[in-house]
Amino acid sequence: MTAPAGLRPLPKFIFPEVFATDFTIHNLPYGVFRGSSGGRPRIGTAIGDKILDLSVLASKKKLPECFGNTTLNEFMGMDKSDWSKVRATIQRYLSDDHPESLKYDTEGLLGEALTDMSNVEMLLPCDIGDYTDFYSSEEHATNVGKMFRPSQEPLLPNWKHLPVGYHGRASSVVVSGKILWASLSTPITRPCGQRKGPNDPAPTFGPSTRMDIELEMAFFVGGKATQLGESIPLSKASEHIFGVVLMNDWSSRDIQQWEYVPLGPFLGKNFGEVMVGGDIECLTSHMNYKLSYLAHSEDSKPQIDIDLTVDLNGERICKSNLKHMYWSMEQQLVHHTVNGCNVRPGDLMGSGTISGPSPDSFGSMLELSWAGQKKIKVGKSGERVFLEDGDKVTIKGRCERDGVSLGFGECSAFDDALS
Amino acid sequence: MTAPAGLRPLPKFIFPEVFATDFTIHNLPYGVFRGSSGGRPRIGTAIGDKILDLSVLASKKKLPECFGNTTLNEFMGMDKSDWSKVRATIQRYLSDDHPESLKYDTEGLLGEALTDMSNVEMLLPCDIGDYTDFYSSEEHATNVGKMFRPSQEPLLPNWKHLPVGYHGRASSVVVSGKILWASLSTPITRPCGQRKGPNDPAPTFGPSTRMDIELEMAFFVGGKATQLGESIPLSKASEHIFGVVLMNDWSSRDIQQWEYVPLGPFLGKNFGEVMVGGDIECLTSHMNYKLSYLAHSEDSKPQIDIDLTVDLNGERICKSNLKHMYWSMEQQLVHHTVNGCNVRPGDLMGSGTISGPSPDSFGSMLELSWAGQKKIKVGKSGERVFLEDGDKVTIKGRCERDGVSLGFGECSAFDDALS
Repeated sequence: MTAPAGLRPLPKFIFPEVFATDFTIHNLPYGVFRGSSGGRPRIGTAIGDKILDLSVLASKKKLPECFGNTTLNEFMGMDKSDWSKVRATIQRYLSDDHPESLKYDTEGLLGEALTDMSNVEMLLPCDIGDYTDFYSSEEHATNVGKMFRPSQEPLLPNWKHLPVGYHGRASSVVVSGKILWASLSTPITRPCGQRKGPNDPAPTFGPSTRMDIELEMAFFVGGKATQLGESIPLSKASEHIFGVVLMNDWSSRDIQQWEYVPLGPFLGKNFGEVMVGGDIECLTSHMNYKLSYLAHSEDSKPQIDIDLTVDLNGERICKSNLKHMYWSMEQQLVHHTVNGCNVRPGDLMGSGTISGPSPDSFGSMLELSWAGQKKIKVGKSGERVFLEDGDKVTIKGRCERDGVSLGFGECSAFDDALS
Repeated sequence: MTAPAGLRPLPKFIFPEVFATDFTIHNLPYGVFRGSSGGRPRIGTAIGDKILDLSVLASKKKLPECFGNTTLNEFMGMDKSDWSKVRATIQRYLSDDHPESLKYDTEGLLGEALTDMSNVEMLLPCDIGDYTDFYSSEEHATNVGKMFRPSQEPLLPNWKHLPVGYHGRASSVVVSGKILWASLSTPITRPCGQRKGPNDPAPTFGPSTRMDIELEMAFFVGGKATQLGESIPLSKASEHIFGVVLMNDWSSRDIQQWEYVPLGPFLGKNFGEVMVGGDIECLTSHMNYKLSYLAHSEDSKPQIDIDLTVDLNGERICKSNLKHMYWSMEQQLVHHTVNGCNVRPGDLMGSGTISGPSPDSFGSMLELSWAGQKKIKVGKSGERVFLEDGDKVTIKGRCERDGVSLGFGECSAFDDALS
């Protein structure tokens, strides 16, 4: 979260107004976009309410050639030191007081490379080879255990020994909105499927009656692809974390509950995971541990302090924070590869629902309504148990350190009734 | 399994000796290969002990342009009628008694396009977007239930209502051998991980002590990619099944047993799934059903009669058959998309372990040794409970109808001890 060396004291920016937005010069999240009327996908970065088209800079040899690609996979596959170098370069181009600033460019490059966010359509930033979802919030896992196994210990015996996770479906990951980091929503079709309550004689088929969301963050894998049989040690894990995004893991609780034994979530979880880009360098976290391959050198709780909120139809229903996670992203990645499972740049790994200790910090409606037993207050007059047709859910994230603040945009989607 | 119309009576072949192999003119499985010294990946088909380089035929406009690609995804994304047309075309090129036979070609095309299998390296046939594994053998699911939940009904309540499945990991799917459809083995590194027996006070870390295999078949999804929110009805399912392969889903039982609650298999299943190509047209099957979206028009058990065997170090340990499956491939695909989950050409869907009713037809060592309680006889003098370092496992498949016989090659890999 700190600015790269050489950028302190804070430079003046070409865009002083960006102080008020998620996208300051310290953020510069990467994305892939195209013009609202179509055309070839291009790589860009957000600054204020604009996009800097990095393919234009690549075509002028001001950035590596891979910024002319239609996805970020090749750049993600470069070394962490390359990512830092490129970020510092873009920051110089956008700064007000550096000789390389584009404001001194006489070819009109800045005008050519800058577009209003409102003029573009966002696409997935990369080909996602594989998507994995973890289950790394102790509060969330405990809540679910209390609801579904009331007579047992809420946490299963393995939970504190390893970051429990499962493979998700890459094809159903979609980008938030049509407009970059803006508030337009992505429609998520309410899934049909088999549902069976404990007292129903047989399953029935129809639209889900327990549509839910999950507040998550996720990271993209970066660095050179590993080979089958190779593991990433904890000391190298941060070199394979390219960037972090907000994610809403849309979930159908009734479909999930009937289908999930014994092999885990399937159709209750693969009809839409909505993500929105951010990109953080220098993530650090520290964790309790049991087995040495998962042991950080300091024995302390993780401290990635990112404020997270969930709004339902514009009313806040949850305030949580990434710091509540029991298992760090590095531990998730290390565990994922300890058996030799290979990872590739562009793989996406979700945190699992991020719940905090207080009831207003629970990251799913399942927990907020305690399995449907109580109403969730939505603003002054509304209430919900699960989602209703057309409900719009927006996740936001923001963090601040050493006077530098940055945001993750808005991850927004709505429950699209079946037509 | 029948020859396309117009090919009866059976033509004489350019390669009469292929009668004795898996790869007759009725089979023609697609694959991607390159020369043993490297070079660009090319699409080919197997005939006898040779490969016909289809990129050569594409370059002469004798096949669609997409056969010049380095993967089969584009061809897989075409219509089923296109697949049939191309197959019939290649059959004419390879027949002895048709005017289009390449034996009459004066440009020496046949010489240019034919290579000995022993001269090539096989690669994955396509980019696998997502890999799903089902659990569709009633005998297998019953055996596992009896072993792990002895006091309960062996089949869980959902099992006969829907084809239970879970998302697997696409990155760890590898092709069998280095040489096309030949008997060279792929090394699968024995995974490390956490294991904890029921009486152990805490988990320990180390190489798996219960390495196992699973006899499976899998199909590749074909046809136009579906959109998120779209479902494939049963009447259209066969149009989205491109071809079928043998698969060995390598499994680590000790890692799996400790990690798998509550979200299903993860590291016990993502260190290597080995597949080998085949390609069948006109698969048909019929099933019992409960809910109408899964109901075939005839109410009968599936009859895809493919003999399957598992050899351990050259000794047969299992004889099974695909006809034992309770859920058909079509039903698996229909269920997978009934919630709107999108599928893409190149997606791979595994059957789950194919076990039959008799003990010698169980498709995993877990079942053959009944969770390690009894020794599996291997040939005259050997015995096993689970795999030992260096053990080589080969899966073969063969079917016959109307006097036409075809095989699926050999899916072969060995347990590579950690160095």
